[in-house]
This record gives sequence, structure tokens and C-alpha cells, in this order.
Amino acid sequence: MNPRRKQESLSKMALARALVLEREHVLSIRDIDVPSELGPDDVRVAIHTVGICGSDVHYYTHGHIGPFVVREPMVLGHEASGIVTEIGGGVRHLAVGDRVCMEPGIPDARSRASRMGLYNVDPAVRFWATPPIHGCLTPSVVHPAACTFRLPDSVSFAEGAMVEPLAIGIQAAVKAGLKPGDRCAVTGCGTIGLIVALSALAGGASEVIITDVAPDKLANAARYPGLVPLNVREESLRARLDTLCGADWGADVVFEASGSPHVYDDVLAAVRPGGTVVLVGMPPDKAPFDIVSAQAKEIRIETVFRYANVFDRALDLMASGKIDLKPLIAETFAFEDSVAAFERAAEARATDVKLQIRVGSDTP
Amino acid sequence: MNPRRKQESLSKMALARALVLEREHVLSIRDIDVPSELGPDDVRVAIHTVGICGSDVHYYTHGHIGPFVVREPMVLGHEASGIVTEIGGGVRHLAVGDRVCMEPGIPDARSRASRMGLYNVDPAVRFWATPPIHGCLTPSVVHPAACTFRLPDSVSFAEGAMVEPLAIGIQAAVKAGLKPGDRCAVTGCGTIGLIVALSALAGGASEVIITDVAPDKLANAARYPGLVPLNVREESLRARLDTLCGADWGADVVFEASGSPHVYDDVLAAVRPGGTVVLVGMPPDKAPFDIVSAQAKEIRIETVFRYANVFDRALDLMASGKIDLKPLIAETFAFEDSVAAFERAAEARATDVKLQIRVGSDTP
Amino acid sequence: MNPRRKQESLSKMALARALVLEREHVLSIRDIDVPSELGPDDVRVAIHTVGICGSDVHYYTHGHIGPFVVREPMVLGHEASGIVTEIGGGVRHLAVGDRVCMEPGIPDARSRASRMGLYNVDPAVRFWATPPIHGCLTPSVVHPAACTFRLPDSVSFAEGAMVEPLAIGIQAAVKAGLKPGDRCAVTGCGTIGLIVALSALAGGASEVIITDVAPDKLANAARYPGLVPLNVREESLRARLDTLCGADWGADVVFEASGSPHVYDDVLAAVRPGGTVVLVGMPPDKAPFDIVSAQAKEIRIETVFRYANVFDRALDLMASGKIDLKPLIAETFAFEDSVAAFERAAEARATDVKLQIRVGSDTP
Amino acid sequence: MNPRRKQESLSKMALARALVLEREHVLSIRDIDVPSELGPDDVRVAIHTVGICGSDVHYYTHGHIGPFVVREPMVLGHEASGIVTEIGGGVRHLAVGDRVCMEPGIPDARSRASRMGLYNVDPAVRFWATPPIHGCLTPSVVHPAACTFRLPDSVSFAEGAMVEPLAIGIQAAVKAGLKPGDRCAVTGCGTIGLIVALSALAGGASEVIITDVAPDKLANAARYPGLVPLNVREESLRARLDTLCGADWGADVVFEASGSPHVYDDVLAAVRPGGTVVLVGMPPDKAPFDIVSAQAKEIRIETVFRYANVFDRALDLMASGKIDLKPLIAETFAFEDSVAAFERAAEARATDVKLQIRVGSDTP
Repeated sequence: MNPRRKQESLSKMALARALVLEREHVLSIRDIDVPSELGPDDVRVAIHTVGICGSDVHYYTHGHIGPFVVREPMVLGHEASGIVTEIGGGVRHLAVGDRVCMEPGIPDARSRASRMGLYNVDPAVRFWATPPIHGCLTPSVVHPAACTFRLPDSVSFAEGAMVEPLAIGIQAAVKAGLKPGDRCAVTGCGTIGLIVALSALAGGASEVIITDVAPDKLANAARYPGLVPLNVREESLRARLDTLCGADWGADVVFEASGSPHVYDDVLAAVRPGGTVVLVGMPPDKAPFDIVSAQAKEIRIETVFRYANVFDRALDLMASGKIDLKPLIAETFAFEDSVAAFERAAEARATDVKLQIRVGSDTP
Repeated sequence: MNPRRKQESLSKMALARALVLEREHVLSIRDIDVPSELGPDDVRVAIHTVGICGSDVHYYTHGHIGPFVVREPMVLGHEASGIVTEIGGGVRHLAVGDRVCMEPGIPDARSRASRMGLYNVDPAVRFWATPPIHGCLTPSVVHPAACTFRLPDSVSFAEGAMVEPLAIGIQAAVKAGLKPGDRCAVTGCGTIGLIVALSALAGGASEVIITDVAPDKLANAARYPGLVPLNVREESLRARLDTLCGADWGADVVFEASGSPHVYDDVLAAVRPGGTVVLVGMPPDKAPFDIVSAQAKEIRIETVFRYANVFDRALDLMASGKIDLKPLIAETFAFEDSVAAFERAAEARATDVKLQIRVGSDTP
Repeated sequence: MNPRRKQESLSKMALARALVLEREHVLSIRDIDVPSELGPDDVRVAIHTVGICGSDVHYYTHGHIGPFVVREPMVLGHEASGIVTEIGGGVRHLAVGDRVCMEPGIPDARSRASRMGLYNVDPAVRFWATPPIHGCLTPSVVHPAACTFRLPDSVSFAEGAMVEPLAIGIQAAVKAGLKPGDRCAVTGCGTIGLIVALSALAGGASEVIITDVAPDKLANAARYPGLVPLNVREESLRARLDTLCGADWGADVVFEASGSPHVYDDVLAAVRPGGTVVLVGMPPDKAPFDIVSAQAKEIRIETVFRYANVFDRALDLMASGKIDLKPLIAETFAFEDSVAAFERAAEARATDVKLQIRVGSDTP
Repeated sequence: MNPRRKQESLSKMALARALVLEREHVLSIRDIDVPSELGPDDVRVAIHTVGICGSDVHYYTHGHIGPFVVREPMVLGHEASGIVTEIGGGVRHLAVGDRVCMEPGIPDARSRASRMGLYNVDPAVRFWATPPIHGCLTPSVVHPAACTFRLPDSVSFAEGAMVEPLAIGIQAAVKAGLKPGDRCAVTGCGTIGLIVALSALAGGASEVIITDVAPDKLANAARYPGLVPLNVREESLRARLDTLCGADWGADVVFEASGSPHVYDDVLAAVRPGGTVVLVGMPPDKAPFDIVSAQAKEIRIETVFRYANVFDRALDLMASGKIDLKPLIAETFAFEDSVAAFERAAEARATDVKLQIRVGSDTP
């Protein structure tokens, strides 16, 4: 029995308007059955804003990501903010009217991984818009209160819908074990690269070199003090580090956020002896990796899979102003224009760091 | 044989003008024999600026700190910046004319602690102005190049002489194992409390509550965005955290920087289950400590002794602007007025966060 | 509403025979209402063997432990093994007939602490025989399957009932962050001290010095190769370490397991610079603690509260023979003799490391 | 100037008998100039026993390892024990007549890496029998006292010469961050695989599965209780773990010790979600690595390069009997038969886990 089936058998369903990925390349806004039963530990949330993630686009354009294949119509979207409209009987920390954002993965709280605090790698986790689980591009969702976080007053709905991608950056920074004053580099200046770099900066780096070959993407980084854009067509990361730290040293932490298999040699050359590499970007295939070079510096390699226990951290860092993602939001579409929004997202313009869809009313 | 004797027997001495603590309460500026022989791995540094530390003042007013007793005249001062005037034959990373600051502890590099990277707790470490080792309030010192750090162009000599106290804050932040978005509190808003709070902020905290009972001291914190001063005469730290996190939660990390034995209960009440307490302040005596309360939350307690491997981090964070200590420098005295500077420091005015002595010429 | 009330309101109760602590000093075997409703994620377990813990005895002799006060009759016992007799509809990893042991704390799986993997410090945890929650000295209990662990064939019921106290030792060893070849010392050679020492030995220590002043207790340690009993009436721990490591070094990790406030100076003197102290023993009151001595060595202090995620580790170490607790079981009483067993336990004979009660049938 | 030149220019040389690798495939026992000047922090050691390492053999058969090329005659050997015959004026912890073993890498103690405790990755480290530095297959060597360790009485010279390879296993176990009761697997049952497995067992693993395809090699493991040999021609590691832990779980730590690039998929399949992979084996070339699979479990990957701060740990574990490597010593050759010993080693017989050469007299 697949998880959708289980989901449906366990819970009352109701028809709702939603952005549905019918199959590869085919999107429609239409009514579809989604779970609607509110358990004692759940909240019902009127969705306000939903960001478009690269994975949403990839399901749209390719119909699958690795082993996850869209085999039946699926609601897209997993970066969401909204307003609580109903709470279950056991919910204590949220109230109707609360402005919130939601962690989109629902683990089995009793699993071995969850009990260890690693609920993101719980094999049974159900994650919005990862087949066959429906996402949140629909006016209302039911969600566990434990995965729902109140937005501080200073955090807008648009920013609230940025907490999910920010959480990946924070997770990467947590995994890095950053120390104050670490010298960091990030390879890849796309949405995730930028967010990882800002997370590393907030997490203690004195400054962060961020590399790419696309000047338009690097321009997005140049707006942020503390991010140092470097076009590796013009100067290699290693050459820059030679100047900064000497030829026999390097960055304390290098975050790989491009997903390009060609960048690993540069990453290994850039990190200092005893340093750390954090692999965030996902290469399409197995990649040739120079293990002996990694060993010669005795580096530690961390990998990142989504996030666990960082939504509150991301919110605090937004609320305190240490991380400001508003400049990354390029354009906001109305729910009715969702298909157009996805077509635009599929163009992958360098300046479109984040596109969002406003599902709810005009309240800011 | 005490270390001074050893020092003298191993190295040529030369007469030099210096601020000498003759004995408790007696300071003079006079000529005294100090080490002058430049080894192959040493540099000679013309001292520019020296900060006055609480420990310098304590030796002046009490003649001892714990087991360290001033038994013979000793040059004071250990927070210094200057200019390299001569280098040993084996020195590679420094050149004559370099503007530098110096790590004042010289460990035995071959000791068990040093080989483990814990050179600050090497029992054989020789530390400036810790009896019987002379300090740096003298126009020129010889120092190991490995303990001498080049100042970035954007870091002034005055700031360079602040790297040493900043290093304590960075060490505390490193020991804390801060994660981005940690909620932190610091008890005690003196010089070290402020520096620890700024280090925690630079090291990933979203914001830092800093407590004291003296409004003048809290006013020093209020100048910094991200530091939240709290007068615990008016509201307890626990009450503030109840509002912020709920009664059953608390700060991820609490740094104790007051040295007051009365604050430990508040510290233990403030930290969250599974959180961390970092003990920076040094209480004068054994203190009653509620170990069962610490166990009930299974907290980790870290202690801090000086610093190791953080001078370069402190400099990078200063140079990038993430930590700005210039507002803490209250007044700068000429070398000839050093005794007056110490008398002023002994008054412990709340607004005198840091007093400095300019030993060298007027170059900024 | 206290947790017992909540427990009763949520779940069907049934009369069962049990060892009931009526109030301080008054024990009886009688029928009492205990929870009997099996939820979908629960199992029903026929209790076989229950160990008597110092805390059970302390409730019997004092009526409270710190803030936990016996205000109404409470079933004692929390160290248990048994046989699964019924499983809930959602249970997958257990079957009727399985021999099992049980983790006695039931956390709220959705709480902040639980989501972080720190379920032992979840403020809402409900723990057997901690007022007002009933314990397991009764023929049958209902328990969450997630807190129930299958015994390997080579682990007897008697050993299965030792997994709970062993878990404390493993937790201490995990918190210590032991490295292979660590030199360890344990202060206090009672039941917990012995178990901590055996856990440290299994966890990588080359050998473990265990100290006490009672020769009878030290004799219990002498049976185990790798444990080095030391009577500190005859030779101090520091003197022994001077011989082993030199006067300026010490143990990598010192576990305090006596709960005596007089031992802290010895503990701090024994640990090496940069080493770790793990506080397991619970002193009756606030204890004078020499914080400056801890700082001078920059030691890390870990505290232990029960355990999380270690029952499977404890079982594996038992099954592989790396930890053998059978020699610690001094005597086994029939359920009908439970009151006598507690009276004997209250005598605290040095040779009675562990007393057990056989609740179930004679199956081994 | 290459390090050999520097070495020679800094220190007096003297003719000594030695096993000299003249060039690829050409070994001779002859007189050669080796350093002979005893500095104040050095000891002179009469070599007793030297083990033959795979790297020694590889230089013999291939003339290079990666970037390290034998360009001039070089003395081989780096696994040594011996007797102190002379000590420098500053040496305190050793005396003439001490039985010792030696850490073969001599770092620059003032380097950035060394100050951090990472002296093994100091780019300036000089390591015995790594071109162009001479090794220790010669009757007497001068060595820093800080890199020389006294053998406990219970450790023979033959075992003392096994401390160096054991140190690699201990380093791997330290890097793994083993917790007591970890379930571990090692891929590759050669000398290093066996030593890593024994180190993991001593470091807390309940038991260690060790895999290979060669029954003769697995037979070497079968002698040790706690090591579970698995021929992956007959059953895959994943299948074995399915039985042990369930299909959605796995080993807490997998050590890769085969150096075969074909084993990485099995390693990634074997480790549990959130687990750790330690890469010890060095594949000959860049290897295809499934980064997305590593990410999906959010595993941590550690690499190992020689060792730092583990010789004393290795010695303690040998002395306490927790690790017994004597069964691995297959045969001992006289110094005069060194060339024959290398020819035998080049045959790489499965039963020849370790061959040794006795350089010194017959004292055991």
C-alpha cells in the first residue's frame, strides 16, 4: 500500500481547488480530493503564500526526481505560510488567527530515526509534494501542530514562505559545525547557494566567498555585505585562497551547492587540512570523487538532507534581521496564474532567485 | 628553578623602560632587565598600544591572583599591538614593518597538551604579566612568530590591542558549540560579558540577552543591535525567557560572565533542557552549585581558560566588521601616564569598558 | 490536573495485583487500578523480573526524591523484563511471545525535546514509579511498543531487567564522548559506579580505576578484569594518577558516581587538562564546587539524566558478552516476598549490588 | 630545497648500515649517510624490530605512491621499536635503557596545523620512508623525544613495532566518534581492515562485521571473538544487516578499508540513516561515488590520514589486553635477510598479515 493510499484510508478527504501536476509537463488548477480531517494534534491552515522550489519545477519538467516518480495527479508546493483557522483538541502552542509557516515533512514520531532527533531521515517521513504525497498549493491544509511555527510579527507571509528554503541553509550550517570566524566558501550561486552562504554568514563566518560562472547569478550575491562573489572563469577559488590564507592552507568549510560533478576537485583543493566539506547540491549521477585527496587533508564530509529542528532557528534569524531574504523574492503571482508562474520558473532566469504564488487574500 | 630564572638563563637580557609592578600597590616606570635575544623563530616588536586588563589591575591592587603571586618586580600588560622591527632567520609569514598583535601565552610546543591543540592548558605555558613572567608594557618585546598575527589594514593598533580580550569571547563561543539561531544569554555586563555577548552574536546567535544590576553597564550593551540588556533587579532572566520560549524551555546557551557565585541558580534556571552553560567568570571562592538541577536538564557545562587557535578568527571578525570593539575603548593614556591609567582603572567606572596605553609613537 | 489523573481519564483502568507504596515506609501487595487499555501503538507485557533500584528504595524510606513526592498510593518498580502477550494494531517490530525489556519513560513524542532526540529531558515525560505514575511491580503492563525492546536469545530475563540500570551507564559513557584508549576513573563503587565503570570499559577505556572507601564494595569491582579498585583511604586517586600519567596530567574522563559532595575536589584534581567530568551521582544538596579549578584545566562537565536511545546499545553489549552484569545480581525474591525484598534493599548491604523480584512464572 | 637537503644541511650525518631502496625494484643493505646529530629534545634509539608496511612494499615495487616519488636512494621502514641509548639535554620523560616505539612523522610544532592539534596534516611533516626522508631500517636513529613512547613492561618489542599500524586503526575509530554499542562493519579484511575492526571493537562496538571475498583473509578475522567475518561472495553486507537491523536501518559506522572503488555502493547501502562512513582505504584513482545516496541518509563521511595523538592510546589498549595483535605477526626476519623479507612481502600472501625484521640483538 503506498503512502497516499494509507493517507486516504486513515483520513477523511474533501474536494478542494489546487494546482495539480497531472503528469510530466501537464499542470492544471482544478478540484481534487485532499485530506481534510483534523486530528487532536493538528491545525487547519489557510494558505497565504507558497514559494516555487526547484524540485517542484523538476517534477513538472521531468516527472520524477531520482526514485520519486509522479504516477498519479499530485498537488505541488511545499514552501508555505498561512493563517491558522482551526485547532485540534490537544494543541496548546497555537491559536486560531496565528500567522504561521509549516515544516512540510511529517515523520513517524515513534520511529527509530525520530527518537534519535533525525526525523528528516526517517524512512517513513511523508513530505509535501514528494510523490505520492500532496503539496500545499491549495487554499487550506491540515497539518500537525508540531510541524507548524508561529511567525514573529516582523516576519511577513512572503518571508514566512521562505523559511523552508532557508531551513536547508541553516541545516547545512549546523552540519558544518561552524565556529565563529570560520573562513567559508560556497560553490554555486543559485537560490540554494545564496541561502547557504547567508546561513554560513549568520552562523559565524567572517565572510563567505561564493563562486559561479554566471555573472548574473553572482550579482545577486554582490548585494549582500559579507558575501564575496567570485567568477571562477576569471580566477580560481584556489588562487583566491592562496592570496588570503597561503598556498598550504584554505577555507575552514566549503559548501558545495551547485550540484555540478565538475566542481569537486575545486572543492577539495579549496578546503584547509582538517577542514570540512558540506555537500548540499545533488549531482544527477554518480560523480568521480578524489577520495585520496580528501584523505591527504583528513577532511570531514557532511551531507544534507532537508532539515530537522531548524525552523525556529530560521525564524529567529529572520526576525532579528540577521538574515534578510526579501531581496531574493523576484516576483509574486496570483494563485490563478500558478501555471504561468511554473512556466516562468522553468525558464530558470538568473534574476528569478525565488518566485512565489499568493494563494490567499491580500493581507500582507 | 622558577620560569623567570629559566627565562633569564636561556636568553640575553637588556635594560628597558617599562611599567613595573614592584609589589602590591606599587607601580613605577623605570628601567628593568627584560629578555632581548632574538631566536630564529622569533620577531622583535615595537609595542604601540597596550590595553589594561582586569587581571593587571588585580595584581596591582591585590598582589596575586589565586596561586599566582607577585614575588619580585614584574612588567605588566598583555593586550598588545605593535610593529615588527626585526625577524629571526626562520620566520616566513612576517616581515619588518608588519603591523601585528601578539598572543601573550607561549606554550611548550612539544608538550602533551600542545600536541593535542590545547596549548592554552599546557601546564608549562609562559604568559605575559602572570608572575613571574614579564608583560609587554615596555617599548619593545621579543616574541615567537607563531604567536604573532598580522593586522589587516582595516584594523587599527587600538583594535589590535583588543584582540586579546576578544579572543576570550571567541573561545567561549567556540566552546559553546553555537549553532546558527541559538538563543543565548550572558550574565554580567562588564568588559568580558560584553565581549562574550558580541562573540556569541557573531558566532550565530539570533540575539543575546545580557543581564546585570548596574544600569550604567547595561547602557554599554544597549548601543549594540542584537544585544538585549536586561536589568535583573526589574525582571528576572527566567521571567523573560518564559515570555520568549515558554516556561518549560529556555536559552540554548547561557554564558556566565559575572564571576558572582549568586548567579548560578539563575543560570541553571535559564538554560533549556539539553542546553549548554559556559562558565567564563571566575568566582573568588568555591561556590555552591546545584548539580541536581543541572542533571535534571542534562546540561553540558563548558569552562574557558584563555584561548587557543582563535586570534586569527578574532582578527577576521574585526576586519569584516562583524565585531566592532572600538566603542568600548573609553580612553587612551600616554605611556608616561601609565600609573595614572592604572589608578583610573582601579576605580572600575562602569563607562570605562577598556582603557588603553599608547606606548609607541603617534602613528594611528 | 496531575498526570495520573490525565492518565486515568484517557485510558481504561483495571484492577491488578501490585506492590503498592501506600506512603513513606508503608508497602503492601494488593489490588489497585492500573491502566489497561491497549492503544494501536502499544503492547501488553506479562512482567517476568523486576530489579529494585535505589530510587524505589528511597521513595519507600523517604517518601520523596527532590520535587517528586508520593502523595497517593503508587506501584513501585521500573527495571523490568517480560513477555509480550498482546500487540496493538499498528505494532510492527514485536509479536506475541517476544521476550522483552522496557524503557520506563514515556515521552510526548511531539514535544520540542523529543523532536531533538532528547526525549529523556522532555518536561512532559511520564516515568514508571516516579510520582504520580505507577511502576511495573504488577503482573501485566501496557506499554508503547516504541519503548519495548526484544531480548536477544542469549539475554535472560534477569539480565533483561538489568538493561535499565545499564542504560544509565551507557548514557554516561555516551555523554563522555569516550575515545578508544581513554584513561578513566569512576568515583563511587556502588551499583551505579560499577555499571558506569563497566560501560566506560566497554566504550573504549583501556582500563578504569574505580574508587571507594568501603573494601566490600571495591571487592565487587575486583571481580572484573579491566576495573582497578582503589581504596582512597589508602591512596588518593591523584597519587595513583601521578604514578600513571605524571603530576601534570590525569584521567581523560572522570565519572562521579558517588553522589558525595566531598568528592568533587578529588574529581577536579584527577582529570587531565582539557579532560571531561561526567556527573552521574546526585548529591543531596547544593555542593561547593571549585569552578576556578575546573576553568584552569578548561574541563568539560557533562551531566546525566536517565538515558535516551541507548537500550538497544545496552542489549547488544550484553548479548555480545562485552558487558556481563549477571555477577551483580545478589538475590532474587518471589513477588509475594516483595516487601521483604524492599526491607533487605533498605539495608544497603555492600554485597547486594542488585536485588530482583520475579513477578512471573519460573521460565528462566 | 627539498626536505632531505634541508635535513642534511641542518644536522651532522654519519655512515650507517641500512636497508636502502636504491630505486624501484632495487633494494640493498649497505652503508649510507643518515642524520646523527642529537638535539636537546631528541633521543637516540637502537632499533630492535621493524614491521614491513604495504607502503614500504609499494615504494619497492612501484617506486612511488601518488605524488611521492623515490628519486634518490632512501632507507625504508617506519614501524619500529627499540631501546633509548642517549638522550638530549632537554629530555625529561625518557631515560637511557627505556624500551620505546616511535611515531614516524615529525611535524613542525609551530605550524598552523600543529597548533590546532592536527599535526598529521601539517603540510611540512617529515615522515620516515616517505621520499625523500629516510626510514628506520638501520641500527640506530635520532628522533624527537616528543614522538617517542615508552613501552609498558607487558608490551614486547614485536608488539611495539605494531603500534604504528594500530595507530591507524585507533585514528579511524576516533574519527568515527564511536559510541558504546555501535554496530560496525569493515569492508576489507587485509592488515588494515583487521586492525581497524579490532580498534572499533576496543572502541565500543558490540561486534564488528568484516567483509572480504578471500576466505583466507576472513580466516584471520575468525580467530578474534567479536569479529564476524562475512564473505560477500556468499551473502551481501546489506542482506546481513537486513536480518540484524531491518531493511530500513543499518550499521552505525562503516569503515572502508579495502581501497577498492567497487565497494562504495555497498558501504552506502550498509550505513544507517544519519550514520557515519570512515574512509581508510585509498583507491588508486578517482572513484565514482553516489553522493545523492549519501545525502538521502544524511551520512557523515570521515577520512583518515595517518594519526595524531593516538600512540599512547594504542599502547594502553595493548598493555591492558584489549587489543592483541601478536596473532597477526606471521614471521620475523633477521636484518641481513631484509631483502628476502621484502620479496616475501611483495607476494602478499593472505596469511602474512604482518612480517617483521629484527634489526637489533636477540633480547625479546
